[in-house]
Amino acid sequence: MPEVAPVRSHVPVAVVGAGPAGLMLTHLLARSGIASTAVDLRTRAEIEQTHRAGILESDSVRMLVDSGASDRVLRDGDEHRGIELGFGGGRHHLDFADLVGATTRLYPQTDVFLDLADARERDGGDVRFGVADVEVGDLSARTPAVRFTDADGVRHEVTCDYLVGADGSRSACRRAVPADARRQYVREYPFAWFGILAEAPPSAPELVYHHSPDGFALVSQRTPTLQRMYFQCDAAEDPDAWSDDRVWARLQAICGSNGHELLEGPITSRTVLPFRSFVQEPLRHGRTVLVGDAGHTVPPTGAKGLNLALADVRVLAEELERAVRDDDPDHLDTYSVRALERVWKVQHFSYWMTTMLHALPDASDFDLRRQQGELAAVVGSRAGSTWLAEAYTGWPTTTTGGPR
Amino acid sequence: MPEVAPVRSHVPVAVVGAGPAGLMLTHLLARSGIASTAVDLRTRAEIEQTHRAGILESDSVRMLVDSGASDRVLRDGDEHRGIELGFGGGRHHLDFADLVGATTRLYPQTDVFLDLADARERDGGDVRFGVADVEVGDLSARTPAVRFTDADGVRHEVTCDYLVGADGSRSACRRAVPADARRQYVREYPFAWFGILAEAPPSAPELVYHHSPDGFALVSQRTPTLQRMYFQCDAAEDPDAWSDDRVWARLQAICGSNGHELLEGPITSRTVLPFRSFVQEPLRHGRTVLVGDAGHTVPPTGAKGLNLALADVRVLAEELERAVRDDDPDHLDTYSVRALERVWKVQHFSYWMTTMLHALPDASDFDLRRQQGELAAVVGSRAGSTWLAEAYTGWPTTTTGGPR
Repeated sequence: MPEVAPVRSHVPVAVVGAGPAGLMLTHLLARSGIASTAVDLRTRAEIEQTHRAGILESDSVRMLVDSGASDRVLRDGDEHRGIELGFGGGRHHLDFADLVGATTRLYPQTDVFLDLADARERDGGDVRFGVADVEVGDLSARTPAVRFTDADGVRHEVTCDYLVGADGSRSACRRAVPADARRQYVREYPFAWFGILAEAPPSAPELVYHHSPDGFALVSQRTPTLQRMYFQCDAAEDPDAWSDDRVWARLQAICGSNGHELLEGPITSRTVLPFRSFVQEPLRHGRTVLVGDAGHTVPPTGAKGLNLALADVRVLAEELERAVRDDDPDHLDTYSVRALERVWKVQHFSYWMTTMLHALPDASDFDLRRQQGELAAVVGSRAGSTWLAEAYTGWPTTTTGGPR
Repeated sequence: MPEVAPVRSHVPVAVVGAGPAGLMLTHLLARSGIASTAVDLRTRAEIEQTHRAGILESDSVRMLVDSGASDRVLRDGDEHRGIELGFGGGRHHLDFADLVGATTRLYPQTDVFLDLADARERDGGDVRFGVADVEVGDLSARTPAVRFTDADGVRHEVTCDYLVGADGSRSACRRAVPADARRQYVREYPFAWFGILAEAPPSAPELVYHHSPDGFALVSQRTPTLQRMYFQCDAAEDPDAWSDDRVWARLQAICGSNGHELLEGPITSRTVLPFRSFVQEPLRHGRTVLVGDAGHTVPPTGAKGLNLALADVRVLAEELERAVRDDDPDHLDTYSVRALERVWKVQHFSYWMTTMLHALPDASDFDLRRQQGELAAVVGSRAGSTWLAEAYTGWPTTTTGGPR
């Protein structure tokens, strides 16, 4: 670390991490007249090239539109009225619009980021991409500090009244919380997802979640000529060891067991996505809060990661405004309580979708038949379908805090 | 075995097992003019002293009443509008009547048996309790045979057109199906229920299912002065090693964690109930069918054992009538398909209730919090509550057979 005095400044809110959660938060705060600085180790181009989930809950879409961050999501994002569940030899449609009067929208995380980055730039927001040597100071200080070296090599120290850790699953802010001030909850899964992007026409109009004796597959979409698909694999799988033919053979076997034939094409990207459930409690420490993946991770089944981060942000923006207005950091406790209530429900939903649909380790034939029985019960019951639809399209955000 | 020629006879339907399922079937068949003989190794007094589940689905109640087997269930059986779920420090009521327009009724299995045994006696039905040396002949024969020695020591051979195995979880009929003609599905659980009968006033008006970090407990009722309660225990637990004080301390700890104090009294019965999931497929072999526990076992959480057996009987009575009328045993295939569709849904429901509410082996703190998140989501959502209520009060019986 160079021994030069940093450029010092102070902002009401400093945000570590300028992905969708961090940017959405600073965007909402700016609309309420609260200044902020956001920093990210990654360059803007690097974030733009990160392919992630693409399904937005109805409230996530509303948030993008109502906050003025994106009208493109309504133009370019395909509305999905539901999903299909493939199991036991067939495919079964769940019509969310009919069941709960809500839909989802296919709009990749990259596009959410682009819209938010553009909005911040348009509004003159202070967002620094591609910084280096980020250090988070003593979190119990009255004005916590973030130190970093900007893209031009200038060292900065930004002090703030409130520090937000929006720095993802390897969060430095989370690690700065003393061990005796937090609890961590972890669940590992003995499998992962093999994800591909393929130059092919869509094989289905909406997402198809396939359960089969050979494991899980998800048929998703990206554009009319580019498709996103996943299948269950070993966590230690090497994506580069799989030829296109081998990938397609596996996908066709899983989906074919439910009568679903896929349209193939060249595979342009292949990656193995880790599976993990994680929560750190509380989400507040002094004047610091954690938001999105910095505070919790969900497995990808059910596409909750980005949506849960945006739900955090929705609550945090409200509580931060109160904290700034009242000069009272205890509003951050309310954030933690309100956000965690949703986090644990969503953790369960992600776990449920995962265990209902995947081939489980050491599963007996009984477990396979039981899973088929569960899927048959869910699609055969309006209450069961509604229960899934409500969680998939997104529970409403609680509007008042309260004891858990 | 004595080498004397048995007394030979023939009936359209012979039933091995004269518990509630076997008796209800012969009762329904008699109402359609189909004669039957039922035999059971146990004496009537022995069956009367078997304490089992006491919650009847709405369709089970309707079946008892509409068939003329019991009007007492409406007089003596307490209607329960719902259940309570205890977790996370509190109790939450699910009002089934409001959610799905159906209720359950507290009416012990012993009373169901008494009513059916009385009805069969009143109607002159051929039911032989306390027989010995029951042998089931070649199941692939045109007229399968049941041999037994009656209570007076007389050896009988009853041949039949259709043989029904209603002989419980250790079914001799099930074991007589050749191994290459059936598949068996098993799941063991690494815990059991410690059940007590206590001379005490009720601690709640309806059933309370308690989830706690120390495990599961169920607060149930029997009469105004006799209560039935259960708590999760090790499968190898010796019930006689537990003093009254120790039992009450454990129950109070689990229920107390959710603010529920129990009224205590002398414990008059204590037993450890095994936990197992089992299904044999198909439920038909030649002219033989399996019904109730003979074909499948569910863990006790959710009180589905007797209800599932009666649901089997409802379908089997219809299909047996068709088989007798058309002289076509293939109607028994339809029975197997229709019954198994429900069996797997109910297997899942019982598994769900079990895994949602029990302390699971090797569970991490994450799993405990996730369970609390699931329970909060279920009681916090009308769709979630409805999904549980619908399964608990009983899915409707499918009225037409069809491919699975």
